[in-house]
Amino acid sequence: MSNLERAIADIVIANRILAHQGVVDAYGHVSIRHPDNPERFLLSRSRSPELVEARDIMEFTLDGKVVGDDRRPPYLERFIHGGIFEARPEVMAVVHSHAEETLPFGLTDVPLKPVIHVASAIGGPVPVWDIAEKFGHETNLLVTNTDHGRDLAKRLGNGKVTLMRGHGFAAAGQTVQDVVRLAVYLPVNARVMTAAMRLSPNFKALAPGEMEGRNTFNPKAPESWRAWEYWARRAGVSDLLGEVP
Amino acid sequence: MSNLERAIADIVIANRILAHQGVVDAYGHVSIRHPDNPERFLLSRSRSPELVEARDIMEFTLDGKVVGDDRRPPYLERFIHGGIFEARPEVMAVVHSHAEETLPFGLTDVPLKPVIHVASAIGGPVPVWDIAEKFGHETNLLVTNTDHGRDLAKRLGNGKVTLMRGHGFAAAGQTVQDVVRLAVYLPVNARVMTAAMRLSPNFKALAPGEMEGRNTFNPKAPESWRAWEYWARRAGVSDLLGEVP
Amino acid sequence: MSNLERAIADIVIANRILAHQGVVDAYGHVSIRHPDNPERFLLSRSRSPELVEARDIMEFTLDGKVVGDDRRPPYLERFIHGGIFEARPEVMAVVHSHAEETLPFGLTDVPLKPVIHVASAIGGPVPVWDIAEKFGHETNLLVTNTDHGRDLAKRLGNGKVTLMRGHGFAAAGQTVQDVVRLAVYLPVNARVMTAAMRLSPNFKALAPGEMEGRNTFNPKAPESWRAWEYWARRAGVSDLLGEVP
Amino acid sequence: MSNLERAIADIVIANRILAHQGVVDAYGHVSIRHPDNPERFLLSRSRSPELVEARDIMEFTLDGKVVGDDRRPPYLERFIHGGIFEARPEVMAVVHSHAEETLPFGLTDVPLKPVIHVASAIGGPVPVWDIAEKFGHETNLLVTNTDHGRDLAKRLGNGKVTLMRGHGFAAAGQTVQDVVRLAVYLPVNARVMTAAMRLSPNFKALAPGEMEGRNTFNPKAPESWRAWEYWARRAGVSDLLGEVP
Repeated sequence: MSNLERAIADIVIANRILAHQGVVDAYGHVSIRHPDNPERFLLSRSRSPELVEARDIMEFTLDGKVVGDDRRPPYLERFIHGGIFEARPEVMAVVHSHAEETLPFGLTDVPLKPVIHVASAIGGPVPVWDIAEKFGHETNLLVTNTDHGRDLAKRLGNGKVTLMRGHGFAAAGQTVQDVVRLAVYLPVNARVMTAAMRLSPNFKALAPGEMEGRNTFNPKAPESWRAWEYWARRAGVSDLLGEVP
Repeated sequence: MSNLERAIADIVIANRILAHQGVVDAYGHVSIRHPDNPERFLLSRSRSPELVEARDIMEFTLDGKVVGDDRRPPYLERFIHGGIFEARPEVMAVVHSHAEETLPFGLTDVPLKPVIHVASAIGGPVPVWDIAEKFGHETNLLVTNTDHGRDLAKRLGNGKVTLMRGHGFAAAGQTVQDVVRLAVYLPVNARVMTAAMRLSPNFKALAPGEMEGRNTFNPKAPESWRAWEYWARRAGVSDLLGEVP
Repeated sequence: MSNLERAIADIVIANRILAHQGVVDAYGHVSIRHPDNPERFLLSRSRSPELVEARDIMEFTLDGKVVGDDRRPPYLERFIHGGIFEARPEVMAVVHSHAEETLPFGLTDVPLKPVIHVASAIGGPVPVWDIAEKFGHETNLLVTNTDHGRDLAKRLGNGKVTLMRGHGFAAAGQTVQDVVRLAVYLPVNARVMTAAMRLSPNFKALAPGEMEGRNTFNPKAPESWRAWEYWARRAGVSDLLGEVP
Repeated sequence: MSNLERAIADIVIANRILAHQGVVDAYGHVSIRHPDNPERFLLSRSRSPELVEARDIMEFTLDGKVVGDDRRPPYLERFIHGGIFEARPEVMAVVHSHAEETLPFGLTDVPLKPVIHVASAIGGPVPVWDIAEKFGHETNLLVTNTDHGRDLAKRLGNGKVTLMRGHGFAAAGQTVQDVVRLAVYLPVNARVMTAAMRLSPNFKALAPGEMEGRNTFNPKAPESWRAWEYWARRAGVSDLLGEVP
């Protein structure tokens, strides 16, 4: 299996896991940087994540142009991915989701913070990108061109995730396993923080040292692979997993 | 496939999607204006949406009378549909639902507003129709005659949706895809707004320009079809979808 | 099919519906008064409702004694059913459930009121039975003898449902369809009222006339049968439904 | 079937029940003390609970060392189990879970108390173990050595359960059925208490006598076996149940 075939199989797995875990629904997408060409990325054609198969994957340049003569309609918001891959050379995978639990934090100035160890990769209070700050109040909130994508990437900065006001979030990872895991636990973290706030305003977020402790992520470590394998089996795509490490 | 056959297939799809997405349960219904006769509409016999098949669809005049000698029991509340089709010639499809998340907003004077872009079609604060305002406090809250239906349609006005106190909501669309999408995301929007209010009273609703930006809906656009196809597949009725645009 | 066979089939349907709808879990039960002998009632042996079959149904006298030489272990809390059947000759079916959403209202003095029309049968603020009032604070909260059962029935009074502090609720109906419907919508009503209270302390409960309007329940009416048939089909027991009215 | 075979079958059942009931996800684990050697315990290799089979079970000494030459990767946090088995000779089974509903109570000083009879085994306000108290703010919150495990066991004391700040909970039982039941109802109890607090600060927790009343648990009693059998059937492992008592 070539690097490209592996990457495509991994995108399919990621799509199906995110759909099965309820992180994405009809909308939302996940991409991987092309393993052989860092100036390109791989992303499904316009299709709901639960339905994505290997043959749906298209190739894009970082400014969101389709590579080759592939005429299938792409996602309108492929610029989220291009913008982040352009700004962050070390990022290898990007998730965009409308996960409901994260949305309230995009509408208020209460910062979403990591409070549980499975979400420690968040790394600190999550910034909020409001498209209206730069592009005004006449958009449909979608990231539909490179200007939008670059502005979003700027708000993400060196972080792992940014909320998008009235829309969802974008997350970046050094591996697809890394960013899928973050995308799965970000909504859980949001629910737990929300519930803790209602119990008491003095809830304990993770300490800085507790966040840093997990910043290196090895997808082949047993504790990481365990989740990837489990989620893939639940989503019905364990046949795509390849060799167990 | 005739226009009528297409409309009937679409009603079945809509019923099954709404049931599968949890927008309707044992109760709730969805109608389409007759494609060849704007003075009539199509609606299932009295049956839970998840069980509706093509042969269950009946035909009604706008005042809720059964067309022909069809003796099967109709929904008691077909007047919701008739009232709206009568008042709004451009409306081609109507959904009635008891979706739980929308109910609290019918019981208080806190207005439900669009806060997420997938619900931007709501278009503004949602009005509440209280049957007791005109018909007193001795009803069973059901819309069981043309007076009820017309009064409800008046509260809907030129909007896309009205809440019904202690009962649910009624939504209107220019296509069945449009109104199903609104019905799916209205409860999500209600949950997100509720959660945002608890974080802070200063939550951001969509700006007027952000709502208007999405008022034209093309069900054949890839981003619209993607959801319709996905929901239909999940609901087990993808065989009724017809030709993919 | 005899009256007794019909009653047993209906108990099985009721058990499976309540389990499938999440009203009962490993615990909870539903009974029917013996159709040929008002001094007896029918109830499953000690078994989780989702697993109950016709052969599990046992017969009891109103003081909770097993009829005949049936040696299978009965539910410890059969006295809930006996107590209510004894005190209320018109009641033909009883449900006991731990439904989570109703429990908070048993722990505080905020009264649970009907706020949605599908729960209008509740008929007014729901009383709370606290076993400790009469039996002290050394019980395990279970209704394990006729004294407990009669005291519970006294708190129920002429109503349709009483909460049980730290435990759940007991509901009574003139038909099994009636009480199952109430048991399905009571938790929904509790969630809606809870959410409305958080939006505003001035939420609108149903008016007295709106509650009375639905007190006569006809299980054979299309709008009632529709739900019974739908829930039975979802729960996999539609073959037990008998003749469609 | 030997004692050891029975214990291994019971661990598999427990893993599958906890996964199916949503108490554990990709993470979390359950152990049983070795039935023939109290200085050892049985626990799966590093695997998500829903996937655990009999052949995955490994054997450990109380200080978390693998017995024999089994080279499969174990859970990093086996020291939770070892620490508790070492400190509490009467404990025969331990569960570790990240159950979301319990997490808020680990982040604030609002004590989690038993409020419903099915959770009466909790026995009183639940202590919170914060790894940072003894080990500082540079850990990844995981219990990865015997010092961590023993400190956790100290906080558990003579109780049945302790929360773990930002992480989850650890629960101990005299039988595996006992601790699984507690692990299933602890999150329910947390949700109910949270909801009751929002209704009124004066909610009623269980009285001391109501908690003590259930401290002896007989897994073969019909009311206990009923739940174990039901959960196992739902989780698809009823074939492992062995002889019905």
